[in-house]
Amino acid sequence: MKNEKITQRSENFADWYTDVVKAARLADYSSVKGCIVFEPNGYALWEKIQTELDKMFKKTGHENVYMPVFIPENLLRKEGELIEGFAPECAWITEGGTNELEERLAFRPTSETLFSDYFSKKVKTYRDLPKLYNQWCSVVRWEKETRPFLRSREFLWQEGHTVHSSEAEAKAETDRMLDVYKTFFEEYLAVPVVTGRKTEKEKFAGAEYTLTIEALTQNGICLQSGTSHYFGQKFARAYDIKFINKNNEYEYCYQTSWGVSTRMIGALIMAHSDDLGLVLPPKIAPKQVCIIPIKNDEKLISVCEHIKESLDSKEIVSYVDYSDKSAGFKFAEAEVNGIPLRIEVGPRDLEHNKVTVVRRDTLEKEVVSLNDITNVVMQKLDKMQSDMFLKAQNSVKEKTYDAKNMEEVKEIMDNHPGFVNAYWCGDEECELKMKEIKGTKSRCIVESSDYKEEKCVVCGKSAKHKVVWGIQY
Amino acid sequence: MKNEKITQRSENFADWYTDVVKAARLADYSSVKGCIVFEPNGYALWEKIQTELDKMFKKTGHENVYMPVFIPENLLRKEGELIEGFAPECAWITEGGTNELEERLAFRPTSETLFSDYFSKKVKTYRDLPKLYNQWCSVVRWEKETRPFLRSREFLWQEGHTVHSSEAEAKAETDRMLDVYKTFFEEYLAVPVVTGRKTEKEKFAGAEYTLTIEALTQNGICLQSGTSHYFGQKFARAYDIKFINKNNEYEYCYQTSWGVSTRMIGALIMAHSDDLGLVLPPKIAPKQVCIIPIKNDEKLISVCEHIKESLDSKEIVSYVDYSDKSAGFKFAEAEVNGIPLRIEVGPRDLEHNKVTVVRRDTLEKEVVSLNDITNVVMQKLDKMQSDMFLKAQNSVKEKTYDAKNMEEVKEIMDNHPGFVNAYWCGDEECELKMKEIKGTKSRCIVESSDYKEEKCVVCGKSAKHKVVWGIQY
Repeated sequence: MKNEKITQRSENFADWYTDVVKAARLADYSSVKGCIVFEPNGYALWEKIQTELDKMFKKTGHENVYMPVFIPENLLRKEGELIEGFAPECAWITEGGTNELEERLAFRPTSETLFSDYFSKKVKTYRDLPKLYNQWCSVVRWEKETRPFLRSREFLWQEGHTVHSSEAEAKAETDRMLDVYKTFFEEYLAVPVVTGRKTEKEKFAGAEYTLTIEALTQNGICLQSGTSHYFGQKFARAYDIKFINKNNEYEYCYQTSWGVSTRMIGALIMAHSDDLGLVLPPKIAPKQVCIIPIKNDEKLISVCEHIKESLDSKEIVSYVDYSDKSAGFKFAEAEVNGIPLRIEVGPRDLEHNKVTVVRRDTLEKEVVSLNDITNVVMQKLDKMQSDMFLKAQNSVKEKTYDAKNMEEVKEIMDNHPGFVNAYWCGDEECELKMKEIKGTKSRCIVESSDYKEEKCVVCGKSAKHKVVWGIQY
Repeated sequence: MKNEKITQRSENFADWYTDVVKAARLADYSSVKGCIVFEPNGYALWEKIQTELDKMFKKTGHENVYMPVFIPENLLRKEGELIEGFAPECAWITEGGTNELEERLAFRPTSETLFSDYFSKKVKTYRDLPKLYNQWCSVVRWEKETRPFLRSREFLWQEGHTVHSSEAEAKAETDRMLDVYKTFFEEYLAVPVVTGRKTEKEKFAGAEYTLTIEALTQNGICLQSGTSHYFGQKFARAYDIKFINKNNEYEYCYQTSWGVSTRMIGALIMAHSDDLGLVLPPKIAPKQVCIIPIKNDEKLISVCEHIKESLDSKEIVSYVDYSDKSAGFKFAEAEVNGIPLRIEVGPRDLEHNKVTVVRRDTLEKEVVSLNDITNVVMQKLDKMQSDMFLKAQNSVKEKTYDAKNMEEVKEIMDNHPGFVNAYWCGDEECELKMKEIKGTKSRCIVESSDYKEEKCVVCGKSAKHKVVWGIQY
């Protein structure tokens, strides 16, 4: 089977991705360079992601706020490393109304500066701590090469910002939010991730350390999919965020930040979709079931509506496709849009009080009794969710390798890229050397120790870190 | 009773407003001129408004999308009236990364241009119509004088944009969305509104006509609170949005747009709040009930938790105040934050299996049996919602006047401003003349006709419109 609007993965993976994005009406290019239009199907997916993640944030005690989109240049410059990291990719507002501004304003590339400025006014004593805030917003980074969802000049994200009275508490928060992300990716998106710490070179500008979740595409490319940063007192010193501690002494606060973005939609597509279009795990699909009368017939439509009502009562989101298109066309449309289950209601099945249920991921068809339909749908949705995760997990396992030396790394990256486990001495020089192999970068450090037996994959000296390496999207 | 952080309304209404915003921790000033920080209580209110309005939009068939925040200057200039209206208040991005941009980009002040550009690519035949889209986002207008929620350089809003195959359908959409707004204001915010059509002078730049909902503050000032625009084919011509109609001919589309913003929060405060702080109608309060143990006592806390569980089961949003503050402090805090009901759980009441319930709007206390608590809470929340609307409605009625001439208008605006019903000939000169009375402007035309008996309030000539006038915030 083929969808003529979609390039096959085996032909050209990058084209396949863009074709799926467009064919499933997730996004389209806009007249604004480097920015996309989130079309209804893409935005509904983002809304569903927001809803589920937001519940998790609120369960962990976070409150939503909204900071201004503008950052005055002086405020941005207070923390030196941050501005060094972000200045080259800021968009600058220099005119307001009919006047030139006295000070340039950056469109927020990230909001540590504004949160720090706010915390400095609001935090007085340990009783004011912790403050656990999150914000849903759009950010701008002036990227040169862009791809829908994966990298664009404007994207949507959430950024959590928290401030604590102790190092231990702030570090625990950094870990906790990484866990929230990992849980969300695995349980909702059905995307397995590798977690660990970024190297000094790859960490967030201004962070003491950065934790990361890394996903893998079907063709073995790595996607940094979410990060959680521990700042220690760096921003507190730069922005003067002090509190009176229990010993009645002034102390600088301890901070974290963490974020995931619409790039998740890219990771989701790259993990599950196929040559027929989008494949969505049921727990994140905005519409879970499509009910299709295979002819425009009153009786059939009435059966469809009864099925929908019954699914409604179980909070399964379904819709009846009433359009005047052919049944085949409707099937293909449900497929390309990644609706997890399709129920075909036809006269022949109905004679025996039956309907046909088709799973999007496996395309498996089953003829089931109309009396059982709601239970069958619930079971199939659950099964599909866990099957998709297992399949993705197996795919990642198959693409995960160990390497002892550069030749082995090269062989892997040249022929069948993926996650490469290899030890590293900790020298940036060796890290840079790896880049010569198709841009291979450290994805994360999964373990650190003074290894006796293990040697650096590049220089052969004693290793200090076990690292996952990969080609970056 | 007084809250010492809040100026009394009778002393200074403007200061009272700002004090309520700050004391209820809705928003705070930021280091970015003209922009506010939405603090947790303020943002939670916005989220609740979004949730309820979004349901109404989806019920009326609208889908959410997201367009880029940037509008290239040339794209913005395609429709002449729009750019004339908005250019003086646009913020301009002129630098991206380390380069000057070849073309300035406006931060969206409103998105008719981007939606039109998108529709022009997507609409081909009448089968593609209507498209009913909405977007939640932030917009920027370079205002000189700002007030939290009422007017700020950046604010949050929703903007609906729809495109239709007939004039009648587009006009019906314009009416329908005005009705949705009116319903939302009256049923959720408990804020009565006057609806009608804007004069030519006051309509949206680029619209054929603008419908509006207008609210009134407790001190008789008018707040334009939501608008719904009919564009006819103006944008379709400027952006070339054509479709093949049922007669197989090319035809320009018919468009609408409609929006409400975080200004609603200002209208809400101005309509209901009092000298003790925020007063929120139960249907829009993010937290509806505060349960306060009047001592830190295990038994009391356990009763509080039982009450919360019982309210949870009825989907009433409540919380127990566990903080180690005094009972009096907790009462005042629930008051200033506008929690609709407060339940005081004390040992003396409890001996008789009773608790005390206090309504925020009237401060009425009632001692009720613990067995009835959930029913009592539900009844009180319902009653409070309808009482608040009635009270606001009476307040508006009291401040609504008829005037026959300028002297009468002046007497009203000088001494007890409000909505003034007065006839108008339709000449802009007369409309401008009214402005000399404390800036009185036409709020909306509520009826038009070739009146025989009625004369223009300014010039005395035959009237064409019955208009509501008022002082604008």
